[in-house]
Amino acid sequence: MTELAPSTRSRVLAALRDQRIETASWAFGNSGTRFKVFAQPGVPRDPYEKIADAATVHRFTGVAPTVALHIPWDKVDDYAALAAYAKEQGVALGAINANVFQDDDYKLGSVTNPDPAIRAKALAHLIECVDIMDATGSRDLKLWFSDGTNYPGQDSIRARQDRLASALSATYERLGDDQRMLLEYKLFEPAFYMTDVPDWGTSYAHCLQLGDKAQVVIDTGHHAPGTNIEFIVAFLLRAGKLGGFDFNSRFYADDDLMVGSADPFQLFRIMQEIVSADALNPAAGIAFMLDQCHNIEPKIQAVIRSVMNVQEATAKALLVDAPALAAAQENGDVLEANAALMDAYHTDVRPLLRELRADQGLDPDPIAAFKGSGYYETVQAARVGGEAAGWGA
Amino acid sequence: MTELAPSTRSRVLAALRDQRIETASWAFGNSGTRFKVFAQPGVPRDPYEKIADAATVHRFTGVAPTVALHIPWDKVDDYAALAAYAKEQGVALGAINANVFQDDDYKLGSVTNPDPAIRAKALAHLIECVDIMDATGSRDLKLWFSDGTNYPGQDSIRARQDRLASALSATYERLGDDQRMLLEYKLFEPAFYMTDVPDWGTSYAHCLQLGDKAQVVIDTGHHAPGTNIEFIVAFLLRAGKLGGFDFNSRFYADDDLMVGSADPFQLFRIMQEIVSADALNPAAGIAFMLDQCHNIEPKIQAVIRSVMNVQEATAKALLVDAPALAAAQENGDVLEANAALMDAYHTDVRPLLRELRADQGLDPDPIAAFKGSGYYETVQAARVGGEAAGWGA
Amino acid sequence: MTELAPSTRSRVLAALRDQRIETASWAFGNSGTRFKVFAQPGVPRDPYEKIADAATVHRFTGVAPTVALHIPWDKVDDYAALAAYAKEQGVALGAINANVFQDDDYKLGSVTNPDPAIRAKALAHLIECVDIMDATGSRDLKLWFSDGTNYPGQDSIRARQDRLASALSATYERLGDDQRMLLEYKLFEPAFYMTDVPDWGTSYAHCLQLGDKAQVVIDTGHHAPGTNIEFIVAFLLRAGKLGGFDFNSRFYADDDLMVGSADPFQLFRIMQEIVSADALNPAAGIAFMLDQCHNIEPKIQAVIRSVMNVQEATAKALLVDAPALAAAQENGDVLEANAALMDAYHTDVRPLLRELRADQGLDPDPIAAFKGSGYYETVQAARVGGEAAGWGA
Amino acid sequence: MTELAPSTRSRVLAALRDQRIETASWAFGNSGTRFKVFAQPGVPRDPYEKIADAATVHRFTGVAPTVALHIPWDKVDDYAALAAYAKEQGVALGAINANVFQDDDYKLGSVTNPDPAIRAKALAHLIECVDIMDATGSRDLKLWFSDGTNYPGQDSIRARQDRLASALSATYERLGDDQRMLLEYKLFEPAFYMTDVPDWGTSYAHCLQLGDKAQVVIDTGHHAPGTNIEFIVAFLLRAGKLGGFDFNSRFYADDDLMVGSADPFQLFRIMQEIVSADALNPAAGIAFMLDQCHNIEPKIQAVIRSVMNVQEATAKALLVDAPALAAAQENGDVLEANAALMDAYHTDVRPLLRELRADQGLDPDPIAAFKGSGYYETVQAARVGGEAAGWGA
Repeated sequence: MTELAPSTRSRVLAALRDQRIETASWAFGNSGTRFKVFAQPGVPRDPYEKIADAATVHRFTGVAPTVALHIPWDKVDDYAALAAYAKEQGVALGAINANVFQDDDYKLGSVTNPDPAIRAKALAHLIECVDIMDATGSRDLKLWFSDGTNYPGQDSIRARQDRLASALSATYERLGDDQRMLLEYKLFEPAFYMTDVPDWGTSYAHCLQLGDKAQVVIDTGHHAPGTNIEFIVAFLLRAGKLGGFDFNSRFYADDDLMVGSADPFQLFRIMQEIVSADALNPAAGIAFMLDQCHNIEPKIQAVIRSVMNVQEATAKALLVDAPALAAAQENGDVLEANAALMDAYHTDVRPLLRELRADQGLDPDPIAAFKGSGYYETVQAARVGGEAAGWGA
Repeated sequence: MTELAPSTRSRVLAALRDQRIETASWAFGNSGTRFKVFAQPGVPRDPYEKIADAATVHRFTGVAPTVALHIPWDKVDDYAALAAYAKEQGVALGAINANVFQDDDYKLGSVTNPDPAIRAKALAHLIECVDIMDATGSRDLKLWFSDGTNYPGQDSIRARQDRLASALSATYERLGDDQRMLLEYKLFEPAFYMTDVPDWGTSYAHCLQLGDKAQVVIDTGHHAPGTNIEFIVAFLLRAGKLGGFDFNSRFYADDDLMVGSADPFQLFRIMQEIVSADALNPAAGIAFMLDQCHNIEPKIQAVIRSVMNVQEATAKALLVDAPALAAAQENGDVLEANAALMDAYHTDVRPLLRELRADQGLDPDPIAAFKGSGYYETVQAARVGGEAAGWGA
Repeated sequence: MTELAPSTRSRVLAALRDQRIETASWAFGNSGTRFKVFAQPGVPRDPYEKIADAATVHRFTGVAPTVALHIPWDKVDDYAALAAYAKEQGVALGAINANVFQDDDYKLGSVTNPDPAIRAKALAHLIECVDIMDATGSRDLKLWFSDGTNYPGQDSIRARQDRLASALSATYERLGDDQRMLLEYKLFEPAFYMTDVPDWGTSYAHCLQLGDKAQVVIDTGHHAPGTNIEFIVAFLLRAGKLGGFDFNSRFYADDDLMVGSADPFQLFRIMQEIVSADALNPAAGIAFMLDQCHNIEPKIQAVIRSVMNVQEATAKALLVDAPALAAAQENGDVLEANAALMDAYHTDVRPLLRELRADQGLDPDPIAAFKGSGYYETVQAARVGGEAAGWGA
Repeated sequence: MTELAPSTRSRVLAALRDQRIETASWAFGNSGTRFKVFAQPGVPRDPYEKIADAATVHRFTGVAPTVALHIPWDKVDDYAALAAYAKEQGVALGAINANVFQDDDYKLGSVTNPDPAIRAKALAHLIECVDIMDATGSRDLKLWFSDGTNYPGQDSIRARQDRLASALSATYERLGDDQRMLLEYKLFEPAFYMTDVPDWGTSYAHCLQLGDKAQVVIDTGHHAPGTNIEFIVAFLLRAGKLGGFDFNSRFYADDDLMVGSADPFQLFRIMQEIVSADALNPAAGIAFMLDQCHNIEPKIQAVIRSVMNVQEATAKALLVDAPALAAAQENGDVLEANAALMDAYHTDVRPLLRELRADQGLDPDPIAAFKGSGYYETVQAARVGGEAAGWGA
């Protein structure tokens, strides 16, 4: 990396030093597909142990100081105690993720269910999540609805939109001044014919209707084949409606693999839109969150790798020679403009990130350091008995 | 069809009698793929001959009284004369389709081109189209932009949105009180990396910004695989932002086959959303247009078949037992609700449509009548010499 | 249906009378997505109760006389007793489906696992399935492997093919003279990066290598978007390598919805290839099986509806005027050839099927008859306590 | 790159020195989409000028010593003279690409056309291409058929397979001892409903039937969304049936962009399969060809960039620590195995390639060298008048 100009180097390092990536409590628990959940040893058994794992990720990477919770999976009696424990471990509680898809009542939907009693129950859960945010000090309420239908005619698309709008509005009203609602969209799964919030347009339209505290969150695995995700990023940034990301990778559907593992060039392009809009800094208010399932690989190590993948894509995006890119674009020089992007992408930024970590007093190689720390062996020995955390708890 | 209750029968027939489908002038000219345009005999050589063909379609179907024009392909010196000719033939001029994709200047875009001079030229064309609308009495300006980029980095996604918004706004300002702008979207082609209006969300957001006279038009072939088009129909109808359709069929990309030929059940579901929102009647302001390419099949006959396919899907949608459907939906009876839809879909509505045509003084079998009319043989004999119309003219 | 020529009518009715559709034991148990399995009342608790449900489907449809088993889900000590019970109920045991995806050992694959001990275990299960076939008298061993990898580099694609070939060969050797191996393929899920048998080409190549008793089975939900399934049907029929179908519907991925519910026109086209190759008759050896998940709808009723959907698609395929179709094809008359197909598709065949059922002493309306029979209420009352069957048991 | 062990370095450099990439004559001519062909200045007007451009690419890259021809686009009276000219320019003539898609007769297909006279004409062209191979000394006959149908029912899928098999067989018989037939497949376009050779399985099955001189060629843009191309590479290599590649990039359909520009990680994975099967060396007989359309970017520069992209992906593939990868795979260490691949991919190999070029007496920066050479300016000035080459000539 000796070829980097000193000013570039310091600019890039400064930006990387400020970067923040939020991990997800549920990524440390067991997960799988409809065919099988393969249990892993050492998996946390309660929210405290999940936070301990998340704090471990932060200890080795230095850029993952918050951890998102999923309610009711992470329900506890005393959120202040949980927050205090997190603080002790060196992290803070992040976004609250509502869950209205795992109760038998939600077979035909939650807030869009044809049955008003079930809708009321789902709404009560959303409101409860805001109560929890008050207790945890979380800024963001993340809403993903599995609501939809499996068969044409099963329910009225339009009526369900009305019900959705009503629940969103009631929840929005409950938000405090410093709280936000992040509305996720997803093409399909678990609903197979029609999903009530299938795409960014639907989420955007509802957020626009709701007001400034409602914003769109992009899960990188929730799109139709061929969707240009960085276009959506650029569009929402321009419109002031991008709230954040749920990062992960996919080859086919919502595979929830490690971010950057399926199409690292796409991740770079996404981060390039972020950087070019000056939206990387935490002050810009974009939440960069991981939402992944480590079905077959060791979970903590996979989260560390994922954090590193985001860092590497970001470093490459920061290396783009913006004036050269802009000049080529203005000149209509297709190949030079493309080359300006590719030059940054092809750069090996790992030495720069090792340097960043050394500067921060971290081991330059987080994976090796984690493996050498004995943490994984310790929790495998300690976390015996009890019920391993998973998507049901 | 003896089982239809008389009240149902008369309701359905009345709705079908009022239905209007707009044909497209360019569907009668030669078309093809990048690999080859296979010329057909008897193809029109100018806008007058295209109108004659469109009038023939109307003569045999009774529900296609307007024909859309494409500028500059249908440019004439005297639009009043063209309109008068159409009237003589029994049809009227419909939507004006702008074309900013076939000039060498538009290699890197039209209204989003990095070069301001080219943007100005493109905008001037849009304004010219409104001038033509004034002359033809057309209500709708249909805008499809081929604009986009082929390579990552080629141009700034955000800057192109700014340029797009600016051109749309200037064109919108030019519209008269009774004129509308219909903004089309398309996932890809001819741009391969990024399209400036790739999805309904982008079109919707711009239309919302512009005002009431701007609405979204759905081309049924312009979506990513797996997109639920009837969801978009329902959503836009609910939002008051659906301006119309460009009907056609696709198996893979924007194949532009005859509407209803690839997935007739999807067409039925789309029409069912229209019917259930009471948006079929011309007074609702939805433009039902065909936008197809008959690359290998005889063109006039293909358009007649397409019109009939839309009629049949509509008739089936009108047969849905709406109260039974709503009751099953409210009860959460998935299979009964689905069955209510499928019962209508599986009904053979062709006898009903034959009856409708007989009532209107038409031949019950438009294809046979057209074939027997000698029209095709006549134009094949007459249209010799000159340059056959195609996408270039 | 008065317009059908008597000879057509009797030909079609005769073919429909001989049609056989195999149900799947697991379709009657609980199922769901990775997000949630919504338990249903009255679900079977053991293979005997599943067979009772399958027999109920046959009782009301008359064309579903066999039921496929899934091992180990349907493991019993005494298969002769199970077969005898089935016979009592009016059905017979059908294909044996091996299951090498639900043991913790199979996290990185079964027959393609890098660990030879796990491969041996998986192979032993396949051999055990043939033992069971000997006991049940089943003709077909259906093999679906969830094997694959989630991350590039995770394992050697080529080495896994070698391991697969080896296990298939050993299993093939074990088959009796009247037994077949049906090798299924699937694009993805549960593996997300690479599946060891992802497409028909892979299955075909292995079957060719193995010999005449190995054939390809097509699951209609296992393809990439845009795949023309009837092409595969036609190709495999021509090559003598089509063993059968796992029927279901999908909008996006492997949704496992009721066959004919997502794209009834596609199902018709598939059946048209079958009919045109004279492969409908049981003597042709094609196994027509259902493989579906009724996650949110009542299961027995959904299976009855699915059987009826296959019947209706078949009836339409049988109505195609084959000589007219062939003549139009030979003449290169695109629209007439297409119309020959569409005319059959648009025909309402439900009256014909009602007539067929009445001829066979069945209720013309199987859904209404089932609903009126009290069977569902009876099993809901009786099947209380115990563990409901699902994908784990 | 100082960290590379000397033995690795010399191994990698040796392999890169032997690499051969074939360019395509038609890439230097004008191309576009069905919407518009944007003409570029300086485009060749005949096969000689195309060869001059191809030779220029070789002069600056050193690894592109052959150029493929397309018949009839590159038809000349005297192929010996053309070959001699190529030799003078420093290149040789490569594969002969047959073209049976641009004659009006081929509207409904070429070798699969329902009309026997048209089939005979198409076959005669294929045979003529072998005649030309005899004259040019080309080893490979590359066959891509645009044949297919646009509408269900249009023609018999099975009958078309019979016709295809017959034409392939007759052509195969005509091949000399040192000649091969490479059979390409493509999902769709220009046919929209059914393509006669849609996937690798179809091509493989025909090649197997034909014999050892028939092999499959993979065009990287011809697959359904979600297809794992490197699986096909690995499978065909294992089966001894991979003949070569048509390299290009796609985001959606067959976009024909510069190879490595849309998903560079995929290109790396493909080359990693090649390298791991020891199939990179020309002696392995795999033809690495470019098949691209430079619709909006300068063509020669784009081809140089494409060649470099293949080189870079190959260099990364060569850097994979094969023993470490194999060990991690055998241990079932998912993350280490993936990391072994990613480590190579993230390495910046551009310094190594600059070194390779310097060793070969080339400019380390081919793009800059080409731009500085004045070649493009010269041909722009010289190639005025006449008809620019394109897909029609």
